[in-house]
Amino acid sequence: MAAVGTLGRRIARSGVLPLCHRPAWGTAARQPPGPRLPPGLPRAPSRAFSNNKILVELDESSGVATMKFKSPPVNSLSLDFITEFCISLEKLENDRTCRGVIFTSAVPKIFSSGLDITEMCGKSTEHYAEFWRAVQEMWLRLYGSNMVTVAAVNGSSPAGGCLIALTCDYRIMVDNPKFSIGLNEAQLGIVAPFWFKDTFVNVVGHRVAERSLQLGSLHPAAEAHKFGLVDELVPEEKLQEKAAAVMAQWLALPDHARQLTKSMMRKTVLDRLVAHREEDIQNFISFISKESIQKSLRMYMEMLKKKKS
Amino acid sequence: MAAVGTLGRRIARSGVLPLCHRPAWGTAARQPPGPRLPPGLPRAPSRAFSNNKILVELDESSGVATMKFKSPPVNSLSLDFITEFCISLEKLENDRTCRGVIFTSAVPKIFSSGLDITEMCGKSTEHYAEFWRAVQEMWLRLYGSNMVTVAAVNGSSPAGGCLIALTCDYRIMVDNPKFSIGLNEAQLGIVAPFWFKDTFVNVVGHRVAERSLQLGSLHPAAEAHKFGLVDELVPEEKLQEKAAAVMAQWLALPDHARQLTKSMMRKTVLDRLVAHREEDIQNFISFISKESIQKSLRMYMEMLKKKKS
Amino acid sequence: MAAVGTLGRRIARSGVLPLCHRPAWGTAARQPPGPRLPPGLPRAPSRAFSNNKILVELDESSGVATMKFKSPPVNSLSLDFITEFCISLEKLENDRTCRGVIFTSAVPKIFSSGLDITEMCGKSTEHYAEFWRAVQEMWLRLYGSNMVTVAAVNGSSPAGGCLIALTCDYRIMVDNPKFSIGLNEAQLGIVAPFWFKDTFVNVVGHRVAERSLQLGSLHPAAEAHKFGLVDELVPEEKLQEKAAAVMAQWLALPDHARQLTKSMMRKTVLDRLVAHREEDIQNFISFISKESIQKSLRMYMEMLKKKKS
Repeated sequence: MAAVGTLGRRIARSGVLPLCHRPAWGTAARQPPGPRLPPGLPRAPSRAFSNNKILVELDESSGVATMKFKSPPVNSLSLDFITEFCISLEKLENDRTCRGVIFTSAVPKIFSSGLDITEMCGKSTEHYAEFWRAVQEMWLRLYGSNMVTVAAVNGSSPAGGCLIALTCDYRIMVDNPKFSIGLNEAQLGIVAPFWFKDTFVNVVGHRVAERSLQLGSLHPAAEAHKFGLVDELVPEEKLQEKAAAVMAQWLALPDHARQLTKSMMRKTVLDRLVAHREEDIQNFISFISKESIQKSLRMYMEMLKKKKS
Repeated sequence: MAAVGTLGRRIARSGVLPLCHRPAWGTAARQPPGPRLPPGLPRAPSRAFSNNKILVELDESSGVATMKFKSPPVNSLSLDFITEFCISLEKLENDRTCRGVIFTSAVPKIFSSGLDITEMCGKSTEHYAEFWRAVQEMWLRLYGSNMVTVAAVNGSSPAGGCLIALTCDYRIMVDNPKFSIGLNEAQLGIVAPFWFKDTFVNVVGHRVAERSLQLGSLHPAAEAHKFGLVDELVPEEKLQEKAAAVMAQWLALPDHARQLTKSMMRKTVLDRLVAHREEDIQNFISFISKESIQKSLRMYMEMLKKKKS
Repeated sequence: MAAVGTLGRRIARSGVLPLCHRPAWGTAARQPPGPRLPPGLPRAPSRAFSNNKILVELDESSGVATMKFKSPPVNSLSLDFITEFCISLEKLENDRTCRGVIFTSAVPKIFSSGLDITEMCGKSTEHYAEFWRAVQEMWLRLYGSNMVTVAAVNGSSPAGGCLIALTCDYRIMVDNPKFSIGLNEAQLGIVAPFWFKDTFVNVVGHRVAERSLQLGSLHPAAEAHKFGLVDELVPEEKLQEKAAAVMAQWLALPDHARQLTKSMMRKTVLDRLVAHREEDIQNFISFISKESIQKSLRMYMEMLKKKKS
């Protein structure tokens, strides 16, 4: 499992700049890639970089990257996964040839199962703090991204997996009644943090969020679409094509105006976590360290293990 | 009509603890009743307590209480009714065998007609203050309740009656076009207070609330359902069964996680009244004491009396 | 084009009181016109005043005025138009015989094309400040109006034209797929200010607003209706009749209660601009003065000119 050390140190080791929340507003606008290349220079149509858990492919002609989660069995959001996610996103954010990212899964039937419970069970206070700060970082970077972000949800997406989808600009889901999505934390006896809630309310409104969060509902694809939790349903074989078409529609807008508009819509909610980040970490630690919560999580993990065998 | 005295004193006389706003967050979690009873002890399957205006039945096996409004002709929310409501709710809240409450009416065709106009007409400033503080208390307790609250709306439900329904976790209404529900205060020439408005907006969103409040609309059941003002419509004979089924669904969740989630969703709106409670009372008094408002209310009462005879 | 001078001075010249934001709350209630006239006095059934760009007709028997935009080719919101709009609205607001206003267009196929781009292109800082203050003033007066405001949208209504509709109490649109409505600023490379956004969110909710604003969408009438951007669609020949019927429904309510309710719903958003008005003007000036923005606007104007010829 994850090495000890702060996310900053982990990322420093990885050779990219230390992470800090770079708000979308007030930064220089991302420009379409064309004009910046000297004319006549040959250009690779596509580049890829892969680490352990995420495969990133960037199509330089369209300016669109795809981040494929490939961390079987269920793409759970471990500290390693999240660190890789943040680093990959940071690379793309700093790559002026990249204007949009599609998130999807390389693992059949699952988009992401959410936060890795082993990171929250039987670990030290320091580990909980490091893990939670990484989860916050992932959300801050993704919700505040200057790039167009599209979730191509090709499998079930509970809890933190649902959060990734909610945090994107647009959500397309495979029209399969076996795939479900939702912030089901309450089912596990835990509580979604306020910024999961804020993101959810921004997408589905207060009433749907209140009911869904209290019941810890996992909504089958059709129901999720009805509630506006996902924007569109497509047959599995049409997903990539549809994601590319949606991305093209969003990229037709001038980046600068679109980015300023996005940050205007999301600033209040982003600022709330930035202002309460340390407090939120302390809340997480004291909640997760409770013996009753640890017991619930252990029981849940036992149940998962039995299911597998 | 209601005796003089503060709600605190009234309740003190009734033999339960003095009321104060006990927020749902930060309190000990309510536990399912089973494990706390010594094994082998016989247990009464149901207990009931009735005062003048409300019948309370608690089914200890399910942990579900039913509060039946039985104050003919129209279950109007007099100071006496509200006091009894608060006391009954407080008793259940403190009863660890109770985890959920269903609110319904024992009077045919009416759920509750809302605030009793006689309490707001021709009375002293002190009376207005006492009455309004009680109305606030009712809302604070119900909106912030740790228990699962389900409204089984079996009749019309204007104004304060609608507020009780809006304040619950879930609303089921009898599918009868003769039954209507809404915050129709504007029709009477008065204005719903900001916390009625906040509760309404949390359920139906800003636009529906703005239009409905300005027009003082009473929505027939089907329209109320379309707007999300009620969650579900059922034939009258299925109402109790459906309420029990919904309650069971909500009680399947761990209490602690569900309660923390509920309070996270409602805290902003609850805190707003707590912070402005005295100011809100003063506003109510100065508004209701205006001769023009008093005249409107007298005319309205005359109209109601003529209707009856 | 517009004369130099502050809006205050422009209006002073026009002979009406200087404009200032008069909030709807806390002012004396508008009363139905009937009782204030001495009995037996003859009364003109209708009065009209017309300036250059707007025709105002007031039907004294119903208390309903109609403001018809007649500034061909596209009713663009120039400084002159906006000044006339504010003066006309102020006159009606101060006329106790007027209780409601219907806004519609006398120009075929267009309601209003939005802010006049020539006011934002190649002008002085002082001009930008004057223009923006006038746009703010228009919105503050209309969103905070004590009168019932109904938009009878009989043509396309992009950007600032859409804002006028959003700012009314009710929106009826002609059911014609060729007519579209939306805040499409992002398409032009500019950003809708926060109070456009706040007004939009209050009507369609956060999610629809976020997507629509980022894409700069112009929604055909049917789609606008589906999203709640307009309340109702009617055939063109039924528009005036329907607007009058809706107005009568809203005027059936006591003015005082309706006005207080309206201001309760809108106060937060109105106060936000009042508190940040000068800052918002400075933001506008520094944004619009950028060479990249000026270039975009010039290109857009060239495109419009070519279209015409």
